[in-house]
Amino acid sequence: MGAMGRAERLEEIVKRRLIYWPSSEIYGGIGGFYDFGPLGVQIRRNIVEKWRRTFVLPYQDFIVEVETPIIMPEPVFKASGHLDHFTDYVVTCSKCGRKFRADHLVEEELAKRGLKVSTEGLSAADLKRLIEEHKIRCPVCGGELGDVETFNLLFKTTIGPYSDSAGYLRPETAQGIFVAFPRLAEYVGRRHPFGVAQIGRVARNEISPRGGLIRLREFTQMEIELFFDPQNPKCPVFAEVENLEVPIVPEELVAKGATDPLYLTAREVVEKGYANEWMAFFMALAAKFLRELGVPLEKQKFLGKLPHERAHYSAKSYDQMVYTERFGWVEVSGHAYRTDYDLSGHSKHSGQELYLERRLPAPKEVEVVRVYPNPATIREKYGDRLGEVVKAIKEAEARVAEAFRQGASEVRVGDFVVTREMVFIKAEKRRTDLEKFIPHVVEPSFGLDRILYVVLEHAVAEEGGRVYLRLPPDIAPVTLCILPIVKREDYVAIGKRLMRELASEGFLVHYDDEGTIGSRYAACDEVGTPLAVTIDERTPVDGTVTIRDRDTRRQVRVKTSDVARFAALVRGGVPFDKAAEALGASPQ
Amino acid sequence: MGAMGRAERLEEIVKRRLIYWPSSEIYGGIGGFYDFGPLGVQIRRNIVEKWRRTFVLPYQDFIVEVETPIIMPEPVFKASGHLDHFTDYVVTCSKCGRKFRADHLVEEELAKRGLKVSTEGLSAADLKRLIEEHKIRCPVCGGELGDVETFNLLFKTTIGPYSDSAGYLRPETAQGIFVAFPRLAEYVGRRHPFGVAQIGRVARNEISPRGGLIRLREFTQMEIELFFDPQNPKCPVFAEVENLEVPIVPEELVAKGATDPLYLTAREVVEKGYANEWMAFFMALAAKFLRELGVPLEKQKFLGKLPHERAHYSAKSYDQMVYTERFGWVEVSGHAYRTDYDLSGHSKHSGQELYLERRLPAPKEVEVVRVYPNPATIREKYGDRLGEVVKAIKEAEARVAEAFRQGASEVRVGDFVVTREMVFIKAEKRRTDLEKFIPHVVEPSFGLDRILYVVLEHAVAEEGGRVYLRLPPDIAPVTLCILPIVKREDYVAIGKRLMRELASEGFLVHYDDEGTIGSRYAACDEVGTPLAVTIDERTPVDGTVTIRDRDTRRQVRVKTSDVARFAALVRGGVPFDKAAEALGASPQ
Repeated sequence: MGAMGRAERLEEIVKRRLIYWPSSEIYGGIGGFYDFGPLGVQIRRNIVEKWRRTFVLPYQDFIVEVETPIIMPEPVFKASGHLDHFTDYVVTCSKCGRKFRADHLVEEELAKRGLKVSTEGLSAADLKRLIEEHKIRCPVCGGELGDVETFNLLFKTTIGPYSDSAGYLRPETAQGIFVAFPRLAEYVGRRHPFGVAQIGRVARNEISPRGGLIRLREFTQMEIELFFDPQNPKCPVFAEVENLEVPIVPEELVAKGATDPLYLTAREVVEKGYANEWMAFFMALAAKFLRELGVPLEKQKFLGKLPHERAHYSAKSYDQMVYTERFGWVEVSGHAYRTDYDLSGHSKHSGQELYLERRLPAPKEVEVVRVYPNPATIREKYGDRLGEVVKAIKEAEARVAEAFRQGASEVRVGDFVVTREMVFIKAEKRRTDLEKFIPHVVEPSFGLDRILYVVLEHAVAEEGGRVYLRLPPDIAPVTLCILPIVKREDYVAIGKRLMRELASEGFLVHYDDEGTIGSRYAACDEVGTPLAVTIDERTPVDGTVTIRDRDTRRQVRVKTSDVARFAALVRGGVPFDKAAEALGASPQ
Repeated sequence: MGAMGRAERLEEIVKRRLIYWPSSEIYGGIGGFYDFGPLGVQIRRNIVEKWRRTFVLPYQDFIVEVETPIIMPEPVFKASGHLDHFTDYVVTCSKCGRKFRADHLVEEELAKRGLKVSTEGLSAADLKRLIEEHKIRCPVCGGELGDVETFNLLFKTTIGPYSDSAGYLRPETAQGIFVAFPRLAEYVGRRHPFGVAQIGRVARNEISPRGGLIRLREFTQMEIELFFDPQNPKCPVFAEVENLEVPIVPEELVAKGATDPLYLTAREVVEKGYANEWMAFFMALAAKFLRELGVPLEKQKFLGKLPHERAHYSAKSYDQMVYTERFGWVEVSGHAYRTDYDLSGHSKHSGQELYLERRLPAPKEVEVVRVYPNPATIREKYGDRLGEVVKAIKEAEARVAEAFRQGASEVRVGDFVVTREMVFIKAEKRRTDLEKFIPHVVEPSFGLDRILYVVLEHAVAEEGGRVYLRLPPDIAPVTLCILPIVKREDYVAIGKRLMRELASEGFLVHYDDEGTIGSRYAACDEVGTPLAVTIDERTPVDGTVTIRDRDTRRQVRVKTSDVARFAALVRGGVPFDKAAEALGASPQ
């Protein structure tokens, strides 16, 4: 890079070409929310499509996709642990009333004094003590700071007209998958392993977001929850990735203060015990995904998280980090081993069994506790709703049995209250070769907005004063620019017709006939458009145009009717020269 | 249809194939929210893609796409009128506390007594009077009903740690577009007309939602805001649609009680004054869109809305209705003429000018009021922040001038308070051939969830006991089923390899080797899979498979290596027979 760095160059392009900007600007802006302009929307769509083609489509026989709501009712987040654990610390100035994220404030104020401290894992009391010890005051008004309090990061709302019916915006798409587990297990015919993907918006009410697209209050996730039998944590397609390289800093090295990764194959990651096959599978794919998005492997690493750094649901975590000039190392995906934390939590709170079944090597005798309704006593209380009550009891059989075993005097099932006299409970023996189990979960979780940023920053190329985005052709927001060499009536007509044709075939195309051809090439390059088509004096005569390669600026001449095929080849990953060869294009 | 209707047949398929289901079922469900299973997600994606290919891609030189947040700050909805007008009436039972949507309750309770009344446009007092006159009581407990109150349908939340910083979930994607208008106008170089599309989730806190996918609290919209000069309401591409048919019940006929549509061309709709060119353009495309989704024109109509039925922002509206067996006529898109209501509102509330410029036939002299900062008085108050203050005043020049003209003693600009002594105000004359104007807006707004329902219901086909979904091939969730005729090792190997190949080319494929071939065909047909590929005794020998057409059940034999091309042709709209012919397939 020249005098300016990539990040600064990018910032100029983002502003000039309106790729994204802070939301609600006309009302003074609102921290943590961004709008995406036309080019931004298209790059995002292309990244999502590539993600699906990397993680979902090739594995569609065992990874399926769902779409669940953003707003979810309170019991979901009670069970998931988010109501209790999804918090940050906030401290309020007793003079001006301003609020700060306490850990960040302490780190920043001490950094100003030349003290480098990490607040990761500290309690409210620890932070309060640091504030008092170092006499940290409000950085805005100098006032005294109050107590350090927990602040829940869920956006809260009310569902419907009753004020006690709380709902929350999901902080991760994952919970929609866990809550729908019975349906999803039914969909895949209870086969396992199986995975469920979801792409969608989530929201986290950050105390004071900053860092552009890196820390947003509303953002888009692409997640997979992979359900497997903990007794058989084998990934059946592991062979496909076993030789892919994974730059990894395992937990044990992180604990010793290491930050540089080991370059291991996915197979080695498993053999050394750094991750199970499923985690290594997704980490290997994630490294390949980012590489194909233009981030070289040496700018990536998977950082092991120490126990106190992990989310409340995770028994093992790696963060996939990408190096950026502007923000240093940025997490673009998280890889967590969630065990059965979520399904067990939802099972306990909902009273529904969330399980799969494994086949035993040989049938065994098991004791099953069965619940039989007593029609006489049920009818006494519920009259002719007997049938409904019987059905409800049968559906909640295991829960009813368990409640009475533990000495409950009554159990609520659906709309009914079941008392002990209303059922007979019997322990029965039966032979079975099936055994219930709660599956374990490995979760790769990608942040689209951060990926957008790192892909853009890594695409910035500067060559002899020329600045452009070297985006992969399948990620570039526009595939072709159509440029009449001068604004002559017949050139314009041909150009506009070609644009409409390509547009109706689904290509994103820019048409431009204003300004010098050099400035128009530069405008195409600046947003990473791989191909520029020029209409010149030969076009009306022999029906040919030139196509210019963004990266080499080489030009070839092709038939106008071949432009769509040329573009399809390049978008599909065929190098410019090969595409030219395939279509018999002549050098220009 | 046989003994069962389409709607019932569909309900069975939706349940059996888990196309969608109520959200949070394990917690007893939550009204107005639905999850979409794997097949549902894919049909939705296909509908969205078709919408983009109908409304956006062919017009990408003047219609662009954006993506803005779901959560927006309070001033947006103050300005948009939603805080004041986006309400329904609620009535509470004074005995049991249950709440009901008042207009629905009155209509339903009176309907039970054989009285058909319309409550559209009635006030709270009107509804209260009806409740008293007819002695309507709580339908659940029989208790007395309280006052009729307004209930705002916006989901409210709090942004960040300050409890007074309210945010709302957008009830339409449109507001994100209006608020970003200055950026978007800049993006298109202030050319007009131009349109902005957005696809995304929105939320409306219905009092008591029902009707499956038809009335949801969270749903997906596909909208376009088309900005044009009200002095020139011409659509430059109107010729492309002018002969398309639009079944329309214009306002004047609605007022007379008519419900049957006139079948007019888009051109006639304009000539008769029923809509301007932009509205007619989008209505014609919308009719074509639904037709291509499988809803014949005779099951569609555009219903004019009378003034009291329109949204608060609309000067003219048509609802695109589709007939369904289950819900009767259902609105799938709304076409509103929003005039300059939104941009004027946001301009007024934000103090920012939201405008475009039109070229005058001849230059004219205009008086411009200019605001010049007075450095001396500014420095007295703000010291060395002078530069910032000057910049802020310049940016808000028109608002500052207007405020002082109206006699304000001070004006707030950004962080600063500007008093009258801090500026000089001068009226200057200048010649210009540009004139500012606030563009008018035509909005077509589609509800994805309702479209999903109507498309599914219309796809249900029954022929001699056989029930299947006759979905258009580009909408079907799965393009091919791969079926070894029996579960033989070599057939299975070939089938699985073919599945992986097709999957990696981006096709959605189901593989199935369990059960009879007949039941597997039926399972493919039931979810509208256009093609079923069978691997049989000839496949290992000569490398051919059979491909079966869902609708005619005709089979042809093709080379295994041609299956992908066959599928691509059919998905792209080529009829089965033509695709077979193109690939030299032999009849089976």
